[in-house]
Amino acid sequence: MQTVSQNACFGGVQGVYAHTSAATGCDMTFGLFLPAEARSARVPVLWYLSGLTCTHENSMVKAGAQAWAAKAGIALAFPDTSPRGEGVADDEAFDLGQGAGFYLNATQTPWAPHFRMWDYVTEDLPGLLFSEFALDRERQGITGHSMGGHGALTIAMTLPERFRSVSAFSPICNPTASDWGRKQLSAYLGADEAAWAAHDASLLMGERGFDGPVLIDTGTQDQFIDLLKPETLAHAIAARRQRAEFRMQPGYDHSYFFVSTFMQDHVGFHAEALQR
Amino acid sequence: MQTVSQNACFGGVQGVYAHTSAATGCDMTFGLFLPAEARSARVPVLWYLSGLTCTHENSMVKAGAQAWAAKAGIALAFPDTSPRGEGVADDEAFDLGQGAGFYLNATQTPWAPHFRMWDYVTEDLPGLLFSEFALDRERQGITGHSMGGHGALTIAMTLPERFRSVSAFSPICNPTASDWGRKQLSAYLGADEAAWAAHDASLLMGERGFDGPVLIDTGTQDQFIDLLKPETLAHAIAARRQRAEFRMQPGYDHSYFFVSTFMQDHVGFHAEALQR
Repeated sequence: MQTVSQNACFGGVQGVYAHTSAATGCDMTFGLFLPAEARSARVPVLWYLSGLTCTHENSMVKAGAQAWAAKAGIALAFPDTSPRGEGVADDEAFDLGQGAGFYLNATQTPWAPHFRMWDYVTEDLPGLLFSEFALDRERQGITGHSMGGHGALTIAMTLPERFRSVSAFSPICNPTASDWGRKQLSAYLGADEAAWAAHDASLLMGERGFDGPVLIDTGTQDQFIDLLKPETLAHAIAARRQRAEFRMQPGYDHSYFFVSTFMQDHVGFHAEALQR
Repeated sequence: MQTVSQNACFGGVQGVYAHTSAATGCDMTFGLFLPAEARSARVPVLWYLSGLTCTHENSMVKAGAQAWAAKAGIALAFPDTSPRGEGVADDEAFDLGQGAGFYLNATQTPWAPHFRMWDYVTEDLPGLLFSEFALDRERQGITGHSMGGHGALTIAMTLPERFRSVSAFSPICNPTASDWGRKQLSAYLGADEAAWAAHDASLLMGERGFDGPVLIDTGTQDQFIDLLKPETLAHAIAARRQRAEFRMQPGYDHSYFFVSTFMQDHVGFHAEALQR
């Protein structure tokens, strides 16, 4: 692992690190905020998965999360959204290939060898983080924005013992029935839709739910709301009687101005679950 | 004036607008955050001047200022740092020309026709803002980062009745005696150093000071600290017996991670002065 940068930030350190990932078979870069408390003890960690076109950097510099994480004494992990590099497949569209990993393990050509973001985020990067930094494996929460909200919800429901809490900002809620999903799931996983269900938050909510608190925020003026399909997830939450807070925030859109506005709520929500 | 974008943000609106400036003779873009209170009354405004290479956008998306401005009910104005466009002179160096206006009126070729950022920030843009938005001309504060800290301090001391409070993050404090200053002042104002003194915060502090509270933050690990020369401003503040808080923040560097860390303090400092 290589240190790219470290900046003092809200009494702690905002670091950027690079490493070679066995999961994706390429170099990966991630951000990690450690609060002051991490100097003397292992601290809880909140994972933040980013959306389409983002790298590890967008949320790290635009969401204002460090202010609230520092107050709560929790770390923030910011993974990249896909494998990258010259030897890695890509597509001209912004919503496929590099920057658009969709947090799954691709099985199809040309994506299969590198696009293994599920393994990267759930195995490879956690292995590194808990070995190299003062993070408490027993106290993890996960959140994300848009494609990253999809990742947070699907990962949390599939690995229910790992995360105490899950939240999402304007998540892609029902990709098996949306143009933000069907295109990518067929490209990465093939035409057999049976393989897609494991990566649809609304279907997972209907089948398994989550054994902990859930918080979802979506803006009523989100310009992509027809692709996100929050109504499907809301229905599944209510039908399952899932403990959850599902909020439609009046006037907000899909931007980081929306994310930053409600970041204090989300960090506070996870901090409450993580500090028990 | 043309609306480029408007995003709901912390209960208010983060807008970006473009207009043709008489001062700079070209199209200019600026950001303006209006808190919810601006829907029903004129609100105080805090000007934020940005540093080298920045546009109106950097601080607007990276400093986290809207969170605190919304709580305090004050607006934030984010001007650009220079004139821009194909007909506008530029230099290959990042610290001269476009993105590096230094908040002065250039008198020298090729800069003179467009590089009139002093007039833009003190006359042209205020004229537009107070005419188009619900801002209270009687309650203004000013801050900035690096070159923008230089701009905030020099403008506030030159127009003392306009601003109730002034602060700065890692300001260029003594440009007449620094490589961040002598190069630009000679290019924009010519070889006669007598014309430079009006744009040196330390000299202005020694000659006039500021009739109100002053807050300055600089990181002890600032990678540009030898160019900033905070020691000269600190000396001038103390020698003048200026009401001020001058802080060296241990471990922090020149980045927006530093700016965002102390933004709550700065907005709170101005809010106290503006709400009287």
